[in-house]
Formats: sequence, C-alpha cells, structure tokens
Amino acid sequence: NSGVVKTIDEFNQAVSKSQPGDVITLANGVWKNTELLFEAKGTAENPITLTVEEKGKVTLEGASNLRIAGEYLVVKGLIFVNGYTPTNEVISFRKSENEVSNNCRLTECVIDNYSNPQRDEQDYWIAIYGKNNRIDHNHIVGKKNLGVTMIVGLDTEDSRANHHQIDHNYFGPRPTFGNNGGETLRIGTSHNALENSNTLVESNYFDRCNGEHEIISNKSGQNTFKYNTFFECTGTLTMRHGNETMVDGNVFIGNGKPSTGGVRVINEKQTVINNYHIGLTGYRFRGAFVMMNGVPNSPPNRYVQVTDALVKNNTFINCDNIQLCAGSDAERSAPPVNSSITDNIFYHESKSNLFTVYDDISGVTFKNNITSKNVDKTIPNGFENAEIKLVKNEQGFLIPESNAIKTKITISPNIATKENTGVSWYSKDVNPAALNSGKTIKVKPGINTLYDVIKTSEAGDVIALEAGETYWLTKTVAIPHPLTFKTLGDKEAIVLFEKMAAFEIQNGGSLSLEGITFDGAQSPDYAGNTVIRTSKNSMIDNYKLFIDNCTFKNLVVNHSFDVVKVSKNTFADTLSIQNSRFENITGHIVALDKETDDVGAYNAEYVIIKNNSFKDVQGAALRLYRGGTDESTFGPFLEIDHNVLDNVGHGKRNKYNAAISLYGVQVNEIQNNIFQNTKGLKMHLVVGEPIVKVLNNNFFNSELIDVTGDQKYTIENLWKEAPSFL
Amino acid sequence: NSGVVKTIDEFNQAVSKSQPGDVITLANGVWKNTELLFEAKGTAENPITLTVEEKGKVTLEGASNLRIAGEYLVVKGLIFVNGYTPTNEVISFRKSENEVSNNCRLTECVIDNYSNPQRDEQDYWIAIYGKNNRIDHNHIVGKKNLGVTMIVGLDTEDSRANHHQIDHNYFGPRPTFGNNGGETLRIGTSHNALENSNTLVESNYFDRCNGEHEIISNKSGQNTFKYNTFFECTGTLTMRHGNETMVDGNVFIGNGKPSTGGVRVINEKQTVINNYHIGLTGYRFRGAFVMMNGVPNSPPNRYVQVTDALVKNNTFINCDNIQLCAGSDAERSAPPVNSSITDNIFYHESKSNLFTVYDDISGVTFKNNITSKNVDKTIPNGFENAEIKLVKNEQGFLIPESNAIKTKITISPNIATKENTGVSWYSKDVNPAALNSGKTIKVKPGINTLYDVIKTSEAGDVIALEAGETYWLTKTVAIPHPLTFKTLGDKEAIVLFEKMAAFEIQNGGSLSLEGITFDGAQSPDYAGNTVIRTSKNSMIDNYKLFIDNCTFKNLVVNHSFDVVKVSKNTFADTLSIQNSRFENITGHIVALDKETDDVGAYNAEYVIIKNNSFKDVQGAALRLYRGGTDESTFGPFLEIDHNVLDNVGHGKRNKYNAAISLYGVQVNEIQNNIFQNTKGLKMHLVVGEPIVKVLNNNFFNSELIDVTGDQKYTIENLWKEAPSFL
Ligand SMILES: [Ca+2]
Ligand SMILES: [Ca+2]
Repeated sequence: NSGVVKTIDEFNQAVSKSQPGDVITLANGVWKNTELLFEAKGTAENPITLTVEEKGKVTLEGASNLRIAGEYLVVKGLIFVNGYTPTNEVISFRKSENEVSNNCRLTECVIDNYSNPQRDEQDYWIAIYGKNNRIDHNHIVGKKNLGVTMIVGLDTEDSRANHHQIDHNYFGPRPTFGNNGGETLRIGTSHNALENSNTLVESNYFDRCNGEHEIISNKSGQNTFKYNTFFECTGTLTMRHGNETMVDGNVFIGNGKPSTGGVRVINEKQTVINNYHIGLTGYRFRGAFVMMNGVPNSPPNRYVQVTDALVKNNTFINCDNIQLCAGSDAERSAPPVNSSITDNIFYHESKSNLFTVYDDISGVTFKNNITSKNVDKTIPNGFENAEIKLVKNEQGFLIPESNAIKTKITISPNIATKENTGVSWYSKDVNPAALNSGKTIKVKPGINTLYDVIKTSEAGDVIALEAGETYWLTKTVAIPHPLTFKTLGDKEAIVLFEKMAAFEIQNGGSLSLEGITFDGAQSPDYAGNTVIRTSKNSMIDNYKLFIDNCTFKNLVVNHSFDVVKVSKNTFADTLSIQNSRFENITGHIVALDKETDDVGAYNAEYVIIKNNSFKDVQGAALRLYRGGTDESTFGPFLEIDHNVLDNVGHGKRNKYNAAISLYGVQVNEIQNNIFQNTKGLKMHLVVGEPIVKVLNNNFFNSELIDVTGDQKYTIENLWKEAPSFL
Repeated sequence: NSGVVKTIDEFNQAVSKSQPGDVITLANGVWKNTELLFEAKGTAENPITLTVEEKGKVTLEGASNLRIAGEYLVVKGLIFVNGYTPTNEVISFRKSENEVSNNCRLTECVIDNYSNPQRDEQDYWIAIYGKNNRIDHNHIVGKKNLGVTMIVGLDTEDSRANHHQIDHNYFGPRPTFGNNGGETLRIGTSHNALENSNTLVESNYFDRCNGEHEIISNKSGQNTFKYNTFFECTGTLTMRHGNETMVDGNVFIGNGKPSTGGVRVINEKQTVINNYHIGLTGYRFRGAFVMMNGVPNSPPNRYVQVTDALVKNNTFINCDNIQLCAGSDAERSAPPVNSSITDNIFYHESKSNLFTVYDDISGVTFKNNITSKNVDKTIPNGFENAEIKLVKNEQGFLIPESNAIKTKITISPNIATKENTGVSWYSKDVNPAALNSGKTIKVKPGINTLYDVIKTSEAGDVIALEAGETYWLTKTVAIPHPLTFKTLGDKEAIVLFEKMAAFEIQNGGSLSLEGITFDGAQSPDYAGNTVIRTSKNSMIDNYKLFIDNCTFKNLVVNHSFDVVKVSKNTFADTLSIQNSRFENITGHIVALDKETDDVGAYNAEYVIIKNNSFKDVQGAALRLYRGGTDESTFGPFLEIDHNVLDNVGHGKRNKYNAAISLYGVQVNEIQNNIFQNTKGLKMHLVVGEPIVKVLNNNFFNSELIDVTGDQKYTIENLWKEAPSFL
C-alpha cells in the first residue's frame, strides 16, 4: 500500500490507511506551509516509512513542520528550508504531551536555516520524546533564533530511560547568539535533572556550533557521548545537570579560535576518558577542561558538587586553559571531592601556565599526568614533565609521542568526520561572501548614485567613491549584503543625506566604510537622526560594521543625532571604529544597549574603538550594556585604545552621564586614551568574572572612573596631565 | 504635443519634450515604484499639465513620489496609495535645494494612507517651495508616521514671501501620533521664524487631524488663515513662531471630544477675529483660546512674548477653557502686553469657570465681551453677563442671539465643508470596523481552534468560547483586525499556550478579551514569555486592548513572564484592564516603557486599570513612561481605580523597584486602591503641568509614595489600615 502523494490531503489519507511495511513518498517539489502529522503504527520487522520521491528534490517551506507519532516509523530524506515552524518544534517525536513516539527513526533529513526571523522567538528544530528512537545522518545547519537546536525531552515518564541513539548527524555552523538559548543539543532540563535519560550521542560532527557556552547541555543522568568531533566550536560539552555521564573518545579541534573549549564537569560520577583536544583557547567556563565548584547542598537547578569524577587518558595539545574549581564564589563554595585526574597528557608549544585552580583541589587525586617540558607545575603532585614530540597519524591527527607515554594515543576509527556524517547529497559548504571579497564598482558623484549602485552590487563588492567629490542621498541606502564603501585617493569623498539615516544595515548585510566624510548638514530637522543604523526589525544574521579613517561632522541639526544606532534583536559580530574623527555631534557615537529585558542578551560581541578623536560630542562615545545574570555567553569583548576624547558627554540629554558607560561587559581593555574636559568612564562589573584592564589613561580636567558592581578589576597608570595637544 | 503615457520612460520623454500648453496624461492603472520628475516650463497663459486618463483610475503605489520643478505647471488627479516614498517627500515643489517651482498648481490629487510603515521614520507628504504656488482641492488622509503632513518650506530666499495659496483641501483623519511630529500643516520652521511667508490658507477642512497639539504650526510671518473648518481636531491652530498672522472667520467644532482646541497665540501682532468655536473641551495649551506667556528676550525658537494681539468678534459656545498667560513658569515669565480682547461672546450651557489666568493679565485690554449668565467673572472688567439663546442658522450652526449682541454673528459662505473640499470622486468615509461590531463565531475547544478561526474572521467579529472548556495553542494567535474573544456562560474557558505568547496584536489589529482564564502552565521554559503582546515590528495603526473579567495565573515557568508586553513603535489608543484577577506571575502585568529615546514618544494614550486584584506578582503592576521634554502631546492619561495589590513588585528582577512606576505621565488619577505587602508607587512628574490626583488609597505594610520631578500634585486620604480581606 505504497505510493507517491502529491498533496497534504493525499498524505493524510495515505497515513490514515497505512499498514506495516508501507512507504509513503512525498512527490518532488516544494511543499509550502505543510504541517505533517505522521501518526501510524509499524512493526519492528515492517516499519512504516515516510520518504521522498528523489533525495534533494523535496523541500518543506514556509510554515511547515512534522510530528512523528507512533511506533516503528521511519522518516527519511525531508528538507526543511526557506521558512520556519509556527509551532515550537520543526520536527517533534510526539503528537501531543501524552502521545509520544517509540522505536522510530529520523534519518537523512535536512534542516537548513529554518529559523524564525524574530531573533528572540523561541523554538526547537528537533524535539525527541518517547523511547528507543534513532536520529541519525541528519544535516542540521544555521539555527539563528532563540532555542536549542535539538532536545531530548524527559517531560513525562514515557520519555525517561529512553535509550535514544543520536548518531552520525552533521550539526553545521550555528552563529554566536549573544544570549542564553543557543545550545546545539540539550538532554533533559533542570526540572528532570535527577532522571536518567540513557541517551547515546555517538559519532556526530559539530561544526562551528557557536551559539553560546554550552555546545551540548547535558541535564539528565546516564548519557554517553562517544566519538563526536567538535570542530572550532566555542563553548564546551557541559555536564550541567545529571550524574553518571560517560564522555569517551571525542575530539575537540579549536584551531586557535577564540572561546573554543572542551568538557566541563559538574555533578556526580562523571567519566571523561580518551578524549583528544587540540588548539583550544577558551578560558573560565570554556576551558579545554573545566571542573567546577558546586553549591553546598545544591538544589538540582544550581551547581551540584563534583563527586567521584574520573578523568583519564585525555590528551591536550596546545590547549591554553585547564580550569579547576572554576566558578568558585560565595555561593559555589564546594570544591570537587573523591575525584581523580590521571594519565592525561598536556602538551603546549609555547604557553607554560595551563592550569588555574580557583579553590581547594585536595579532593582530586592527580596521578601519572604528563606535561611538556615548558609547562609550569601548578599542581604539586601527579604531573611529570617529559620531552614530547608530535607525530601526525594516518587520520591526520597530531599525536604526542614520548618515552613517558606508556600507551599509544589513538583516535577511534568511528570518530565523526564531515564526510561520514549527515547526508552525501546536500552540500556542507557554507561560505557567505566576506567584506572586500568581490569586485570594485566605481560610482560617480551626484544624487543617489550610492543608492542606485546597490541594485547591481553583489556580496563582498567594494563601492569606490571619487576623491573629494560629493555624494548626496535623498534615500537611505539599505545594505542587503556585505559591502565596502571607500574613497579612492587621499581627499575624502563627502556624503550628505536628507533622510534620518544614510545607511541601514539589513538582515544579511555587513558594512565597511573607509576614507569618507559624513556631514549632517542636510539631515532632517528632527530628533534622532543617525548616520548608520541597523534594521529596526529583528536581524537573525549577525553583522559586521567597520569604520576606518572616516570623518563625521556637523551632526547638529537637532538633538540626539547619533553616529551609529542599533535596534533590539540585532547582533554585531564585530563593530570596529578606527583611525576616525568625530566632531560636533549632538548624540552618541554608538549606544549598544537595546537589549533591556535583562535576560543576558546584548548587541555586539567584539567592540573595537582605536586611534580615534572625539571632539564636542554631547552624548557618550560608547554605551555598551549586557544586563541580567545569565552565564551562557562570552561577550561583549571591548577594546578601547589610543583615543582622544575632548569635550565628550556633557550634553544635558546624555542619560548615561559618562563619556564611556559600560554595564556587564565581559572583557574590558581600556588603554592609552586621553580624556580632556570630558565626562568620566563608568563601569558596572557583574557576572562572569570579567577581565578588566584600565591602563595608561590620562584624565585631564575630566571626571574620572566610577566602578560599581562586585567584580575585580585593574586600574593602573591613571594620569591627570595636560595633554600636549592643548 | 499631448498624449497618454504608459511607462516612466514615455513620461520622461514627454516631459523632456514638453512645450507650453501640453498635457501629459498618465494611463489608467497602477504605477508601481514610480518616481516622477515633472521638470518643465509653461507660461501663465499656457501652463503644462500632468494629469490622468480617468480620475480615480490612476494610482501611484509602492515606492513612488513626485517632484514638481519649473514654472506654470499643473498637476491634477494623481492618487498615491499602497506604499510610501523612499525620500523625504511624497510630493515636492522642487527638484533639489536650489531648483524650486513657481506659479505651479497641485489640484485634485489624493494621498491616502501613504505612510512609511516604520512609525518613527520621518517624511512629509506635500512640501511646498518656491513662490506663488496653489495647492487646492486635494484629498489628504491617514498619515501615521513621523513628520508633518504638509509643509511650506522657507529654506532659501527663493521660497520666502511666497504668496502660496492653500485652499479647499480636505485633510482627513490623522490619528494620535503619541510624539512630536504629528502636525497637519506647518509653515516655516523656527530657523526662519523671522521671515515672512505670506501664505494664504483658506477654506480647508481639517477632519479629526489628531496627530498632536499643533493641528497647524505657524512658524513664519504674515500668514492668513481664513474660512477653514476644524472638525473634532485635538490641538490648536498654533502661532508658534512669526508675527502678523491673520486668523479670520474659521470654525472649530469640538463636539465635546477630549483635547479639542481652538487658536493659540504667541509672538507679535497677531489678529484673531470672527472665529466660531463650539464644543471644545481641551485645556492648557489646547484650550478653545490660548494666549501664552513668553520668554523675556526670547530667542526666536523659544516663546516670543505676545505683543499687540487683537482678539475680536470671536464666538465660543460650550467651550470649556480659555487660557490666558498659559505656560507661565520660571522661563516663560513675560505675560502678554499691549493687546486687546474685545467683542467676543462666551456662552456655556453648564460650566461657569471658563477662564484661567496664569499670570499678570494687565497688559491685555478687555472690552465689550459678553458671557452667558452662568459664567464666572474671573476677569473684572470688559465682560458683560447677558441672557443668550442659541438659534440654528441656515448653515446649521448654533448662533448666539441676545440683546447684548450688537452685530449678528455670521459664518462666511466660503467656510470649508466636507463637501466643498477635496475631490468629489474619492470617498471621504473612513470607518474602520470597531470591536464587537461584527458577527459571533462559536469555536470548539481543542488544539489551535482559536488559531484556525482567525482565517475566517472579519474585523469586528466576536469569537465565542465554550464555558469551562480548554483551548490549547501550539501557535501564537496573530490578531490582524479588531477581534473579541469571550466565554459564553459563567465558567471561564481556559487558554493554555506553548509559544512565548498566546496572542500577538498585529498592525491593524485590536483585541478584547472577556471572561477567559489564561494559564501559563504550558508555556516554554524560557525567560520573557507573555500572554498578549504587540507586534515586535513597527505598527502605524494605533490599537486598542481591552481585558475584562479575565483571570491570569501560573505565569511562573521561568522569570520575566509578563501579562502584556508591547514593543517600541507601537501605540495603544486605549489599554484597559478591568474586573480581572492576576495571581502568581514572575514578570510585570504591563510595562509601557519601550520608547527610550526620550524625544517625547510613549506607548499608550489612555491607560485604565480598574477593579482588579493583583496577587503574588514579582514585577510591577504597571510601568508607564514618557521621556523627554517635548510639549507636543496630550497623554498618557492614566486611571487606576479600585484595585487590590497584594504582594506585588518584590521580585529581585523588578527593576522599577515599585508596584506602580510612572514617569512623565500627563494625567494621573490613582484612587481607591489597596496596597498590601507591596512595593510602593513611584511618580516622576515632569513637563506639561500634569494633573495628579492620588486620593483615598490604603498602603498597608507596603512602601508608600515616592514623588520626584518638579511638578505639582495632590495626595489626599492616604491610609495605612489593615484591609478587611486579611
Ligand atoms: Ca545555556
Ligand atoms: Ca509639534
């Protein structure tokens, strides 16, 4: 009783009549706004299969989704793309709370950028309920809105001790989310932390899954993670809740990328063995290995003390940070006990201080650990310095060899690779065009020539302006993809604009500006103009903004005229302002503070402000805000270096009452700046042990530094000398 | 050399070849994304005309606009609809700053709801530059985004002393904008306040032009306003800047609507004669007649002292407030001088205190003014009490007659009417369906039945739920038009919802909820859920939200679970919560504080919270915020009456640190409430002489009232008794 179905009605009919052994085949083409309920009962010998006419030629688009509800059902070959689910789940292993699936299989399916365009709207892409389900060889890439990509739900008894198998899936890039809720896989929740899930996660490839701290958030008992590869993922495999986890034979490849981490241990009876780590740079909660402090008598949803942990036979090559008793604070005061760290290898070609111990480590036994010669002996016993060399094995891994190493380090042949995961018939290449990767388009001066050129531009193109000429805009230039605007020649081209903004970065856009003067003389006589802004609607694609060697002047026609203005639900990977001049401005240079819900969200990851002069600015040079107490994210990272601020922040509408106002920023490097006749620097330091270095700054005739909050900081070489440019 | 053009290329060719006397005719149909530049030179005897094949059958849609550039050009019959201009002006009388039009005419054109969907994005619909242009018989309705509807620009010498004539236009409804920038007509700006414009504004009909305080903002010298009708317009014809204005023979009809006003006098040598006012209720700056205090030696952009004003032969019938020396404060300390108010008639059928004098009125001579018998003698001289009766004249106006009235009151036959303005071929009816005006649709309980019913609903429909039954939502119900949801019968139907919101009001939608229980038990385990929210994108249509006799409970799955959440760039005409119960909630009931730019914008006009109980609410019951110092708006108006607040506001994430937090609210009536074990009431009183009555409230075991700011207030009968429900 099988055949090709062409409509949702035919599908529903086929499903309702289906018998064990049937194959229901979706016809080639686009299935738009199609919500499939695959509710049927197969048998172990004769499952019922839902598949497609030809792999790669059947797509579910628009407001589509799939519920699998029954026994012995197989779903194979579906692609979800160009849309998002109107419900909470793209693919769900249940019909309703009490109608779950067992013994079903989801295989060779694709979910590609099927993200709700509203960044802060939550959903899951795959939600696994019931028991004995297998999720394998799926290709899952580009989740950009709030919510874990794949979850195992333990809501009801029917979903516990489930023995699911999640294997050979390709988890493609997930960009930095800038808030909690960017995990790639979560098993359980804090509400069922004491339940066992017994889920096996094996041979999956995690490719740049950078949503947040927790690549995987393990929140239930007796799960196993084997032979998975984590390629350039920021964050860690985190044993957030639940006991008796097995983490065995996984590979973590950092390639020196920032915030890449390994395994983070919390709770009881955790086993971490035979894992291989290379080039991981993360620190604190995203170290190459992290063993946390717990909360004494912790409720299940806080931090249960590490007890009976076994950490053995793991290899760390050029990994920068091993963090023990991490998170130690007034609440998390219980260090690990009855645990052992043995037979591990720590090699680093240059760094010597690999280990940070935040509290009493006497509850951990160290034995037979080997380090390369240059590594400091932070922990007195259980470590041996040895001459180690690295030898590439057949699989291409650099393997440490040494007389001190008794057992040869091997990587399982079952280890996940980009090739042996996901499907063969769907490309794993995701290479969006970068800024400056395209052709150069020369544009004549005149009215709206910069606006008109956008239509013919392609991602990565460079728009070249003529030196010294004037470009007039009566329309806001919407930036739909990465574009650079630069003056060819020394004398800056001048941009005048009549709308409330000259440029608007839209979802998918990035912008680089070089050697251009922006003059606000023609802007409308209304409060709230800006030179560059983001879309006022949600942007799920992170953007980049580079301003280099530009001039911004005469932004004074009315009050609150900012240089850069961002909106809620937008996120900059990088916002860089360098070698530029700002003069005579009624608003702020940039206020990155539109996430006011205080749930941990913020507006930019890396903020770089270097070698600029700011003169006669009524607002602040920078406001950077990260509210809430969540610890799931890394940033913002801030660098403010070699700037001169002259008469900045004194406007009566500057509600930050500072020249630079920072709140909850995680890395603060503020160095070599001159503040002259300027409001001060305010820093509110909370959450996440921020790095704060305020060095070599001159505050002349200015307000000074006002630090609040409960975190440590370093302020050195604060001068109050008249600068020589006076 | 005339003919029908079918494409923009044909149009451009026709224009470039055009000779005096030519008629260029746009072919019937939709002209999409069409930017017309009508640049040509006609002569006085032989103008060049741009018109349409058939009136009403040619529409410019999408990103279209028109620039008129030249001499003796006539534009006739164009309709702009279904779109918005990408530039700052839909119709402009110039090509560029220095290429303006003279002796041109714009007639019988329509601009209908051609608003930028981004509420805070500024544009003008008609911008008049050059000299001797006539703008007549146009139909202009529904501007909803930031920016004046029609301006006369005096930017350059070529546009001054312009002798434009603006006549017989129909200015249709413009809804409350909730910010500065909602004027219908502005002549000049503060930058050219001392220039003469010499513009004649005659016989125009202003129909519910309610954008803001200034229906018309006169900002230049020697303009004349004659025979215009202002029908139910909130605000006033304001002589904001510029001298020697003539306001003669206009009619203001309030029909008792709130905030309706007349003429507001500022500056020198202003003449206000022969105007007729009826049923105006506005006070302060929107009184039926307002004469303001000035700033001594005022810069042109502040308030120039009233000097040499002549106010004569005006009639006021049932107008509630005549305001003299209005705005008197530390800065505005110069009362009117050398002025006279004579021969005016003030009749009121019930109110006796019509006149408010805020400062020394000795600089104004009062003579021969007549009041009805019941009116108080606030000003000692120049007023005579008389027996007055009202007689309807042939035009339908109620005319006061009395022995004391020497000259019969007449209304000019040239007075604007709905019929003699605009065009005959385009309907002036704008009657959007109101809540509860449609049919009733009964909906069965079940999963998404409330979601599915929306598709078949029409504006004004009532969705009826079965008593005591459960309605489960796995999707957010988007409300595209006014809809009511109510339980039929006594026992409330229950709504459970799995998405982050149960209902989302979209642009064009309004929502009324009656007799329904909302239970948060199935909502996602993420921070930031809400029961009802507005669109997260800009909404240009104001909305209404009524909650009556509903129950909200168990909003606790995670933190910051609000009942109502609004977004920036949304505006509620009315938000009413009455007779409802709220219990066990981790967020706020409603925070109306998303306009954080402090330019005067806010999120709701009328907020009514009456007869509710709030129990165990971690956030605030209400946060209502209006930032900035702008005086262009009326609201927010707030009424909080007969509520019980029990354990409200104590959550550690309640950043308002209050049970009720108000900032910049213009009318605050807080009466007969019980606060029990609850955070306090915070009020920051700034701008606009707010009305503040806090009467008969009981604060038991609660924080009290914290008032900041610089405005007056009344707090009476504040008790601290144990309420009897304990
Ligand atoms: Ca997390
Ligand atoms: Ca205004």
